[in-house]
Formats: sequence, C-alpha cells, structure tokens
Amino acid sequence: MTSARMLIILLSLAGSPGSTTAGPPRVDVPSDEMTQVSVINALMLGQYDGVMSIPEILRLGDFGVGTLDHLDGELIILDGQAYQARGDGAVAKVGQERSSPFVTIKSFHPDGEVDCPPLGSLDELDAFLDRSLSQNNGFIAIRVDGVFASISLRSVPRQEPPYKPLAEVARAQKVWDHTSVRGTLVGIRCPDWVAGLNVPGYHWHFLSHDREVGGHVLDCHLTAATVRYDESREWILRLPDSRQFDEADLTSDLRDDLERVENARRP
Amino acid sequence: MTSARMLIILLSLAGSPGSTTAGPPRVDVPSDEMTQVSVINALMLGQYDGVMSIPEILRLGDFGVGTLDHLDGELIILDGQAYQARGDGAVAKVGQERSSPFVTIKSFHPDGEVDCPPLGSLDELDAFLDRSLSQNNGFIAIRVDGVFASISLRSVPRQEPPYKPLAEVARAQKVWDHTSVRGTLVGIRCPDWVAGLNVPGYHWHFLSHDREVGGHVLDCHLTAATVRYDESREWILRLPDSRQFDEADLTSDLRDDLERVENARRP
Repeated sequence: MTSARMLIILLSLAGSPGSTTAGPPRVDVPSDEMTQVSVINALMLGQYDGVMSIPEILRLGDFGVGTLDHLDGELIILDGQAYQARGDGAVAKVGQERSSPFVTIKSFHPDGEVDCPPLGSLDELDAFLDRSLSQNNGFIAIRVDGVFASISLRSVPRQEPPYKPLAEVARAQKVWDHTSVRGTLVGIRCPDWVAGLNVPGYHWHFLSHDREVGGHVLDCHLTAATVRYDESREWILRLPDSRQFDEADLTSDLRDDLERVENARRP
Repeated sequence: MTSARMLIILLSLAGSPGSTTAGPPRVDVPSDEMTQVSVINALMLGQYDGVMSIPEILRLGDFGVGTLDHLDGELIILDGQAYQARGDGAVAKVGQERSSPFVTIKSFHPDGEVDCPPLGSLDELDAFLDRSLSQNNGFIAIRVDGVFASISLRSVPRQEPPYKPLAEVARAQKVWDHTSVRGTLVGIRCPDWVAGLNVPGYHWHFLSHDREVGGHVLDCHLTAATVRYDESREWILRLPDSRQFDEADLTSDLRDDLERVENARRP
C-alpha cells in the first residue's frame, strides 16, 4: 500500500459518521496552489480590518506579499517568516497576534531559474521577465535575489477606523531611496483577467539581506540577480466572512486608482 | 491524539525528504470550497476540449453544473453521479473516460433549508432566493427538490474542431418543454464580480427524479419544492495547462453574449 493510498483511507475514516465536527475534516496540505485572502477591490474600498491571522496565513505558504490589519505597512513573507515594512520605514518581524486584510501567498517550490543581467529600472525587469518566463494565463511567484545599485521603496501609515479608501491613503505614502543594497524581491505575477480581484501583472515587495530595509517597490536598478520562479495553475480565493465584505459593491472598475496606488511615486 | 493530529503527522511524514515526487504530496480532501475548472470566457471563445477528467472532477465534489468535452451537452452532477443531457434531449450517465472544459463543483453539505412556495417562473425563484438567502459576496450551491408544473430545458449539440464561439453554437440549441415533472434543480450562485470567470448570479441545470429528463434551465413553474443551500467562502480556480488557454485573451467583456447564451430561448 502506498503512503498516498494509506492517507486517503485515513482521511476517509476521519470523515466518517461519528465525527463531531460539521462537515468533513480540513487538512492544510502545502501544494502548488496560489492563495489570496480577500479581493483587492475590498482593500481599495478601505476594508483594512484583518480577516486571517498570520499563523493561518503561514500555513498556506512561505512566500508572499500583502498588507497588515489597519493597513499597517507592507507585508513581506519570505522563507516562511512574515516581515512588516512599517510606515516609518522600519522593518520588523510580524507577531503571531497580527492579521491581514489582503495577502497573496504560495509555498515556493521553484520550477526554474534565470540569471538576470544588469537592468536599469523596474520596467526593464518586468520586460526581461516577460521575455524569460512563459507568457500564460496562470499565476507565477517570482523570487529575485540580487544586488541593487538603487531601489525605491514605499510604505503606508497605519490607519484607524473609519477607514479612508486606499487611493486616498496612498497619497500619504513615504518613499525611501536606498543605494548599494543586497536583498530579495518578493513578487507575484497575475494574469490581466484578475482585475478587481488581485493586481494584474507584477507586484513587487523587497526585503534586504540584513532584514533592515523593505517595502513596496516603486523602482530599482539591478546590478546582478538570480531569478527563481514558481508557476501555479490553481488559484484559491479565501473570502472574508463579514457583513462589511458582503455589503461591498466589489464590481467597480478601480483599475486606474490601483495603477496609481501600486506604481506612482506620488499617487 | 486526535485523528486530525494523527493525519497531520502522517501527511508531514509523507512529504519528508526521500519522497520521489516533485514537491509536497497532494491529497484531495473534500471540504467547503467551491471549485471551478477553467474560466467561462475560455468556454465563450470556443475552448471545448476537456481539461479535467470526470473521475478527477468527482473527487472535487458531488454537486455541480458544467459541460462535457466537445461541448457535448449539459453536465449535471448530483449525489456524486455525473449525468449528460445530450443535444438530442436524452439523459445518460457520463463515462469515466469523458472530461470537461468547464464545470463548477462542490461537496454539498447543506447550511440550511427553506420551503419554497409555488412560483410561476425562474425569475420568481431567483427573486425568492434573493430574499431567503443571505445576500453576500460568497458562493452558494443550491439544490431545489420539487414538483414542476412546467419546465423549459435546453441543451447544445456536440461540436467538432475548429470550434465556433459559444454565442454562435448556442443559436443551434434545442429547447424542450416538460409538464408535471418531479426532479431537482442543481444551481450555483456566484457574486457579480466573477464576470468573465464564471456566471454571475444563478446558474441552473435540472435532472428529473427518474433521470430521464434534464438540461440547462431556461424557465420553470414550481408547484412545491424544498430548497437546500450550501454557502462557501473559498473559491478555487483550476486552470487548464494548455497553449490554447495561455494564448487566449480572456479579458474581453462578453457579458452580453453570456446573458444571451445562459437565459435566452432564442440566443
């Protein structure tokens, strides 16, 4: 009997009548799926309360980008550790008691590796990856470890209710420029058809090798880097179970606002 | 030790170094998620080749609606059995060798039950459910067992490559009207923001109690029925791994075409 067969039998037994829980058992198995918590339009509308705890998020993967409850900075998940790039630029490990209103996460198992030439801007990096990675309608987690001649990062300040929409909050973003820094770009690429649900195209956060510097990446100049990527054909949305989420009109076309929030030095 | 803890330990062991498979093990555990195979815009564009086998689909749930490879009729999954309402109106059990290009499926575990009054049309049923079920941004599988004074069903004829777009094929749909029939509406309700990815609102297929009559529901007159519903906050998209899918522009707004395909007696 293979262990896979044994597992399935055990799982079947665990779900047999007599179990006291409602419905069959839930087992979190790391896999090739990319999971996101909530949808980007809910965040755009100002839904900053955390809807999934950090420990639960880390059971879904070890690599990802998002934000924290109260929009309290940029969330970077790398090698299974959650980091916060705070609104004042400081980087800290995220405590178990924190949660997130929006995060995209994956168990990172590279499907391939590419050596990256020197690249003068984030646009050049995105174009290089468009040429190097297969163009597809799936999802890709991308890890870029390298040396950056310069990098421009931003973070957002913690908010208190009643929350303002993200496009408004982002106008108060802080931007930092760092030079000669070694570190990792943590990136997610989504197909264009995720509009309203996640960020179409590339979404980059950064964490320095010494874990002192990090944030949402607005631009960078790459001296040398290794790209590792992990493709996924299974996309999971874990939706908030709240009246606030249920009552939101999530169908608005906020793509122009999102473009400014994601990419502009002055949104 | 609880069986859940034992399971997690066994799963961990199965994924330990020494395993010969790439990446961690994958175990299909029935849960509260709603899974869909591919996205509706790929079907609208004429992608009718099957991308997941019927046995694999049935491991993801026991209740759902979709179509078969070659757009070979309407697919109805009820109580774990897959049925095909063929283009000529005949209903047959689906063989293990068949597959689907687009299906939405769930393990049906009712969260609640509602008695349904007599209702003169499908629009009245949808309006009744809008009032009876919580209005939310999640997903709901809905099972309506009842007696129908009349029901109007359609199916589509099997296609051969090169495939025509669905809006064109649907013009050749066959429509049947049945009276005094007992059976089950198999329904999925999606939030409006799934546009392009699934069918916003209610999507109904029907299977008669004697398994002789079935299809996509265009209208019905309900004499009496029991509604059972199963809400879900976890939405999974399993995407085709094909060049055809990767090269498709899935961002087009085909909502008007879809509305005609789904609801019109003469699309």
